[in-house]
Amino acid sequence: MAKPNLLIVGAGGVGQVTANKAVQFRDDFGTITLAARNADKLNRIATEICGRWAGGEQVLSVRTLDARNLDEMIALIRDLDAGLVLNVASSYCNRTILDACLETGANYLDTALAEDEFIENIEAPWYSYIEWPRRPKFAERKISAFLGMGFDPGVVNIFCAYGRKHLLDEIDTIDIIDVNAGSHGRYFATNFDADINLREIREDAITWEDKAWKTIPRHSHWMDVSLPEVGTHRVYSMGHDEIQSLAVNFPDTHRITFWMGFGEHYLNVFNVLDNLGLTSSVPVEVDGVKVAPNRLVKALLPDPASLAEGYTGKICIGVELRGRKDGKEKRFFIWSNCDHQENFREVGSQSISYSTGIPVITAARLIANGTWNPQTMVHVEELDPDPFMALMPDVGIAWQMQELPLDGSWPYPAEV
Amino acid sequence: MAKPNLLIVGAGGVGQVTANKAVQFRDDFGTITLAARNADKLNRIATEICGRWAGGEQVLSVRTLDARNLDEMIALIRDLDAGLVLNVASSYCNRTILDACLETGANYLDTALAEDEFIENIEAPWYSYIEWPRRPKFAERKISAFLGMGFDPGVVNIFCAYGRKHLLDEIDTIDIIDVNAGSHGRYFATNFDADINLREIREDAITWEDKAWKTIPRHSHWMDVSLPEVGTHRVYSMGHDEIQSLAVNFPDTHRITFWMGFGEHYLNVFNVLDNLGLTSSVPVEVDGVKVAPNRLVKALLPDPASLAEGYTGKICIGVELRGRKDGKEKRFFIWSNCDHQENFREVGSQSISYSTGIPVITAARLIANGTWNPQTMVHVEELDPDPFMALMPDVGIAWQMQELPLDGSWPYPAEV
Repeated sequence: MAKPNLLIVGAGGVGQVTANKAVQFRDDFGTITLAARNADKLNRIATEICGRWAGGEQVLSVRTLDARNLDEMIALIRDLDAGLVLNVASSYCNRTILDACLETGANYLDTALAEDEFIENIEAPWYSYIEWPRRPKFAERKISAFLGMGFDPGVVNIFCAYGRKHLLDEIDTIDIIDVNAGSHGRYFATNFDADINLREIREDAITWEDKAWKTIPRHSHWMDVSLPEVGTHRVYSMGHDEIQSLAVNFPDTHRITFWMGFGEHYLNVFNVLDNLGLTSSVPVEVDGVKVAPNRLVKALLPDPASLAEGYTGKICIGVELRGRKDGKEKRFFIWSNCDHQENFREVGSQSISYSTGIPVITAARLIANGTWNPQTMVHVEELDPDPFMALMPDVGIAWQMQELPLDGSWPYPAEV
Repeated sequence: MAKPNLLIVGAGGVGQVTANKAVQFRDDFGTITLAARNADKLNRIATEICGRWAGGEQVLSVRTLDARNLDEMIALIRDLDAGLVLNVASSYCNRTILDACLETGANYLDTALAEDEFIENIEAPWYSYIEWPRRPKFAERKISAFLGMGFDPGVVNIFCAYGRKHLLDEIDTIDIIDVNAGSHGRYFATNFDADINLREIREDAITWEDKAWKTIPRHSHWMDVSLPEVGTHRVYSMGHDEIQSLAVNFPDTHRITFWMGFGEHYLNVFNVLDNLGLTSSVPVEVDGVKVAPNRLVKALLPDPASLAEGYTGKICIGVELRGRKDGKEKRFFIWSNCDHQENFREVGSQSISYSTGIPVITAARLIANGTWNPQTMVHVEELDPDPFMALMPDVGIAWQMQELPLDGSWPYPAEV
């Protein structure tokens, strides 16, 4: 099998990590191209990466692209003869990139659900609007599409598959927990695109329980957890991509919940903005012009990529699984940590971007060598987790697994 | 002396109260006209007022006017043959209205310092930029201009003059205290124009101490006070109009401070907005258009006039004076209370607007009958306080005076 040419779409924080790692492991791929709207940004990233990994040799090409333009997207895939498209652009672009892959036969991978700018609080499962209706076409044309292959969603789904394969005969509950104990030193900032980030926090929380979707008011359900290397944090139940597919692929589970850590200050700022209408995407008239309040807020907030240099501390993302093995009740935690400063030293990005880009290239290497080849649209928990979990540490992130006490306590230090 | 024709400029909350009271006491005046930009608003107010006080008889005329246009302003005064202009418009309009009065010979009254939209944290005394340079011209042409004749500034300055005339031989300290213990039931709102209100809170605090201006960081100096009918509140030192003139007119005072009550929630919302750059008046580019962040915030906040109907609770504004009488140390408090619901029932406005409009018409009646006739520009503490304090209860607001313990304690209930 020939090594596929790679097309990475998106030059934000995740695109930068993905391009770094693609170039580091370039022996696994054909040509590598990074495409996005801003030519200056592309050139800056390419110069930096080729300097870092290839002594300045031009092993990474760049192309300007509007990924929401289907014709442009199709033409670029054809022009590059791309065999694998890594979509790490804004999730507003998923629809056109999916269709361009269907049209050209290129394999597809993304890290987040498709979003529509003016639609919020849609009914679960969220994948049923844009992704799943396209699955029959991917199957029919034998094209692979890997949905949600960042860390969460992505690696956490694979942790669940690992738990089912190796740890438990029956899984009763899945709790996905994401804590960023890092500090960027700014008054307030979002770690990725402010539009998407504020929308995520704005929406009601969705969980899967007793074979049904449950919606609860946002930030109304929380718990305190002590996780490895980050200490004790309050985490809040939220709707999130991975629940939407895990509910389908782990149908006998009693409950699946996603938990995200937020500090009091972060939630306070969010609540003020939201209560005043400043997170809304619906334009209002101000002195004769129309402005979407959330776009003004985004314009005033720091660029997420600019946070990387001063970012300190660690993140911890993992999955708590409860169930039975050989009739005995068991509880496990499978997780990874990343260190903002270490990640910055290696690729110039903070850990939120790093932990999303590493799984993308881990998967891309498995796809390129034929290990993962479903020839249809899949969520990554449907694939064999073992080769992925064996390879991810080599790409950049280690993982750990530990059996936990059944009383629900956390055996990790509360303070770090 | 003929009764002067009144021109009221501005149809916000204060303009509405002023027009109500002008009509109620219309026997003291010639014609009465309310002028502002918005014809619909003017007509609505006029219909309501003529219905309330005159059985629908057209005793209040309205005129559309851009008060920042000097030619328009002059033409309107001439056309109405206005003898007294009551400026209760945005303080961005003071400059043109002052000049129009100088040009036409009409007497002038306002309730707040002139402001320039893009200038903040100017050096004290604030009156030295726009008002005082025009004083020689008012004197020369024998035109009266009454500066800062709302409640604070205004009545509190008159309370100081009363203290000097009747209570103390020497005044050591003046503390002006403004507490709004009312509740409008909204998440966040400003009680008057959001531009001016947020700017006031944004600026450093200025006090007069030991014959010098002192500037301290905003919200850094506070005290808890228990005031009549409103209970205990935390009040913060702020720069405010009245300090700027009292320092000149009470030159032997050791210290003059203005204190405003703010709840924790109010300051929290303000601080979030301010830290994110959302109180700034400097336009930023958002999706190709330029927008001043504070104007977007204003567009999202409730119209201050809309708060009146549901507003409950009371306000207390007063002056604490310390000094000596016949060689003996004394401490006094002189104050007024207003009740939001009572004021709404009477004129359809909340107490912040009411307590500003009542002094305007009290003064206008004294000016109309010749009691106050300085024929130059004055701050109201330069005038005889007695006729004003005798008349204000008749117009709508009573006042009280009490000698207080020298230990600094407040003899009023902490809870109401």
